[in-house]
Amino acid sequence: MDILITNDDGWGAKGIVTLVKEMVVLGNVTVIAPESARSGQSNAITVNMPIRMHRLPEDSRFPEAAIYTCTGTPSDCIKLALNTVFRERKPDLVVSGINHGSNAAINVIYSGTMGACFVAAENGIPAIGFSLCDHNPDADFSFLKPYILPLTRQLLQQKAPYGVCYNINAPIGPLQGTRFTRQCRGNWVREMREYTDPNGGTFYLLTGEFSNHEPMAQDTDEWALGHGYVSITPDSIDMTVHSMVELGN
Amino acid sequence: MDILITNDDGWGAKGIVTLVKEMVVLGNVTVIAPESARSGQSNAITVNMPIRMHRLPEDSRFPEAAIYTCTGTPSDCIKLALNTVFRERKPDLVVSGINHGSNAAINVIYSGTMGACFVAAENGIPAIGFSLCDHNPDADFSFLKPYILPLTRQLLQQKAPYGVCYNINAPIGPLQGTRFTRQCRGNWVREMREYTDPNGGTFYLLTGEFSNHEPMAQDTDEWALGHGYVSITPDSIDMTVHSMVELGN
Repeated sequence: MDILITNDDGWGAKGIVTLVKEMVVLGNVTVIAPESARSGQSNAITVNMPIRMHRLPEDSRFPEAAIYTCTGTPSDCIKLALNTVFRERKPDLVVSGINHGSNAAINVIYSGTMGACFVAAENGIPAIGFSLCDHNPDADFSFLKPYILPLTRQLLQQKAPYGVCYNINAPIGPLQGTRFTRQCRGNWVREMREYTDPNGGTFYLLTGEFSNHEPMAQDTDEWALGHGYVSITPDSIDMTVHSMVELGN
Repeated sequence: MDILITNDDGWGAKGIVTLVKEMVVLGNVTVIAPESARSGQSNAITVNMPIRMHRLPEDSRFPEAAIYTCTGTPSDCIKLALNTVFRERKPDLVVSGINHGSNAAINVIYSGTMGACFVAAENGIPAIGFSLCDHNPDADFSFLKPYILPLTRQLLQQKAPYGVCYNINAPIGPLQGTRFTRQCRGNWVREMREYTDPNGGTFYLLTGEFSNHEPMAQDTDEWALGHGYVSITPDSIDMTVHSMVELGN
């Protein structure tokens, strides 16, 4: 099996190294990852600017993996992979992550980790994004680690339809098992902090708190994460509200 | 009615100027748009870097509109607006565009125009993205123009549920009317063109062709556009495949 791995924290982040160590057990691993952090890049693509990739020397931690860094976004990484290394034969699986931070709830639309999965899904390739709810660069992936290969095998067997991929999130600490969940409703609030620069100008830095609109619902990703479960959400690149199309005409 | 307008081609693009000229008829217009082009920025947000906004002097073309430029992405523009100008009272409507280029089919996931609408939808604000299938900076918006206000009024009356917004695309030339459509299946192919730089290094520029997976289906956005109709697709920020959640557990 040919496995393509990327992330949005950049090559060398603890999360992607953890993921590669697991995936080399499952097949031939090729990594094409951003050369540095691309958090919050969603499905952004690089338009009208050169994109470069660079093959790294063999890594003694996983000598069988081919590792490239890329100057672009996570979406660029997958597009570049499909038009270079995988031009003749698509990978059998794309895995993205392990992200340092949650991609549950509305975060999925801002996520570079999931953006890469959506590009894979567009191209008919099974894709799974893994995230741990811990932004720390030294986050502890040890509880999530034993779930990675069994979940990957299980989800590959389910043969998701065209355009569907999986968004897997895990809470910090010991885990209670897994749950299939839906994306929790909620929005980010108080997202801009105002600053004054040395010249008296105003600038803003993005921040914020997540406001959960349905904290009591037990079928959401946020509920699962809050109760110690690994959350598995099947996501579609088809954003249409089909019931409203028929009503509209 | 308070109307917030943004785009991804940047302030001054012909498309957003056309949109503002229409919207001032409908209510109080505030523009917070990127200071230059942010095409393909999807829902990207600016993380760990300052975001600045700058109020422009009164514009004689629409003296009643308040116009700001922003150094960030389209998503940043909406977040900044909601935390500054609209901190006390949300806008009644967000309109984005008119984009120079199609946001139909899979383009919706890469679109900064629609990214702005998704942020509005996250915040419970009605939102409409307008796009014309013409990348030309001097694109002719005259055929689409008479549709903008009637469509906006019609869609506002429909009171879309939380998290739903509208992706409106128009073909070039005379129009046959409107259709509610679903997102056409398809993927981009041959997306990277390889170049050699003066030092012998390789770089890539994004390009590609859209491969329509269902050219015969008559209910898609691509079909509508190919047959002279304005396409209206209701889009949800909930990416969950709900039927697969129940099957999974």
